[in-house]
Amino acid sequence: MRNANRQWILRRRPVGEIKPGDLELVEQPIPVPGPGQILLRTVYLSLDPTNRIWMSDMDQYMPPVGLGEVMRGGTLAVVEQSNNPAYKPGDIVSGIGGWQEYAVADGAMPLPKSGVPLTAYMSVLGMTGATAYFGLLDIGKPKAGETVVVSAAAGAVGGVVGQIAKLKGCRVVGLAGSDEKCRHVVKDLGFDACINYRRENLTEALKRECPGGIDVDFENAGGAILDAVLERINLKARIVLCGMISTYNETGAPRGNVLTNVLMKRARIEGFIIIDYFPRLPEFQAEMAKWLSEGRIKYDVHVVGGIENALSALDLLFTGGNTGKLLVKVSDEP
Amino acid sequence: MRNANRQWILRRRPVGEIKPGDLELVEQPIPVPGPGQILLRTVYLSLDPTNRIWMSDMDQYMPPVGLGEVMRGGTLAVVEQSNNPAYKPGDIVSGIGGWQEYAVADGAMPLPKSGVPLTAYMSVLGMTGATAYFGLLDIGKPKAGETVVVSAAAGAVGGVVGQIAKLKGCRVVGLAGSDEKCRHVVKDLGFDACINYRRENLTEALKRECPGGIDVDFENAGGAILDAVLERINLKARIVLCGMISTYNETGAPRGNVLTNVLMKRARIEGFIIIDYFPRLPEFQAEMAKWLSEGRIKYDVHVVGGIENALSALDLLFTGGNTGKLLVKVSDEP
Repeated sequence: MRNANRQWILRRRPVGEIKPGDLELVEQPIPVPGPGQILLRTVYLSLDPTNRIWMSDMDQYMPPVGLGEVMRGGTLAVVEQSNNPAYKPGDIVSGIGGWQEYAVADGAMPLPKSGVPLTAYMSVLGMTGATAYFGLLDIGKPKAGETVVVSAAAGAVGGVVGQIAKLKGCRVVGLAGSDEKCRHVVKDLGFDACINYRRENLTEALKRECPGGIDVDFENAGGAILDAVLERINLKARIVLCGMISTYNETGAPRGNVLTNVLMKRARIEGFIIIDYFPRLPEFQAEMAKWLSEGRIKYDVHVVGGIENALSALDLLFTGGNTGKLLVKVSDEP
Repeated sequence: MRNANRQWILRRRPVGEIKPGDLELVEQPIPVPGPGQILLRTVYLSLDPTNRIWMSDMDQYMPPVGLGEVMRGGTLAVVEQSNNPAYKPGDIVSGIGGWQEYAVADGAMPLPKSGVPLTAYMSVLGMTGATAYFGLLDIGKPKAGETVVVSAAAGAVGGVVGQIAKLKGCRVVGLAGSDEKCRHVVKDLGFDACINYRRENLTEALKRECPGGIDVDFENAGGAILDAVLERINLKARIVLCGMISTYNETGAPRGNVLTNVLMKRARIEGFIIIDYFPRLPEFQAEMAKWLSEGRIKYDVHVVGGIENALSALDLLFTGGNTGKLLVKVSDEP
């Protein structure tokens, strides 16, 4: 155990793309847990598009990270010391430990003992899997035979969304930013088709791949991609508005989406954030664990080593450099 | 009975605002009903924002009016001749008779005999009342104590929406385009407040009048008005997307609406068109007739005389020149 805790501090609210100096990597002493507290060593740090939102002081679903505070992030960690009888050293837990090597907490969620790789709990069995599951099934409500479009199809959420939609008997069309990603989601994840929106005209390609129109859109991209999808929606289509990553680095007046067809087709756009579904996580975990054990759902993780690389790794989400769940491996698995 | 039928023909699809020559007033012989048909004399013609949509060849919820065809419009009419045993001369019916003095039809919907003024069947007891009723209650689902915002509050639909929301125990804030309209919806229709969006900064005024945020938005305006509302929505807000009249005369690339807050607040935007509710009209008519007889709902009609004035009257909807339901009186009531 090194006697230092490297942590990323938010120094300045980014404007547009994150610039050097917006966050700073500092070294602090390893914190000491107080009475009833535990000391956690971070093993994996989750990087997610929503991290960019937390850095802004815009109106959002949680308070933004304060200037001078450790950057917020989901973590999988090992209990190193415990002053709490509910935890013992060596326990593996998940929580919001932040962008740092060590964190002190009053508690955290213990992981079940199972043969599943730890990275699964940070992806398909964790928040991104739950986001795919509840967003698609609860908000999108796909029916067998319907056409489901998934943007950011090679991402952590999109890849799972498409596979669940296939399990439900839908035609599934992914949108991704490279031919390699498109091949992956079709060949490996079983999507019916995938459009490289950077190479093709999306409006034309959606006509070709969704000849019967679009019934459900699981939206991770927003912006022009969402506009092209809205042009092709069917009567009573459901748009699960889960993310709009294409807009998170926007500066100036935000670009809107044209709602004309939402009116004409009596469609529904519904915002969705996984925190509303925390009470129902066990229901998701049970079904997803079953699908995993049956080999019916696959998942990808993209692991970058070292807390010092967290900030540059986050950029992969915005440039399309990752496939599957993006994680930073902060220390060795126990 | 004059031996001529004046009718408005769509000659050219308007680009932006309707221009002289886009529609032409022509005179044809009065049509002769065939076997099983009836001849209808138009008494009232309904003018609605959606008329502008029907003139365009955009993707919409009904086929657009064809070039060379009589302009489509809802009508209240008297049966003049009948070759159908289900109708007799003097019967009063409603239907889609179009922008003309006479029409031949296979049938039409008979009006109940009652003491209610005929104009009520073209407004509060007709399609605009039904739009207000089902849009607010079925899509908006307002709960007592919630705040409901209604754009085009002095319009045919908006005025009824606000009164129903008051009956349901909501705080109701209207948006209208003049101080006179605002006074009317507060004093006469019982809204809690009304904002003249042409005089005030809407964002600031919504903060003042909706101190607890917005739970339901009944959207008739779209554009910048909708954006200002979306800035102030509460968690799980419902936006009933009933119309976007501010966009109907747009040319070039349409202006979009910023959906960031729909995501952050897990809100729902749902398109709504009354034709989906035709099977449930009796349920509406029964409850609305009761409210009317109890004096709990008021309604306004703005009547313009003469079929020749239909086109210039339509413009009132876009300039804000009418209060309540806009009708053309084409011939005398029987």
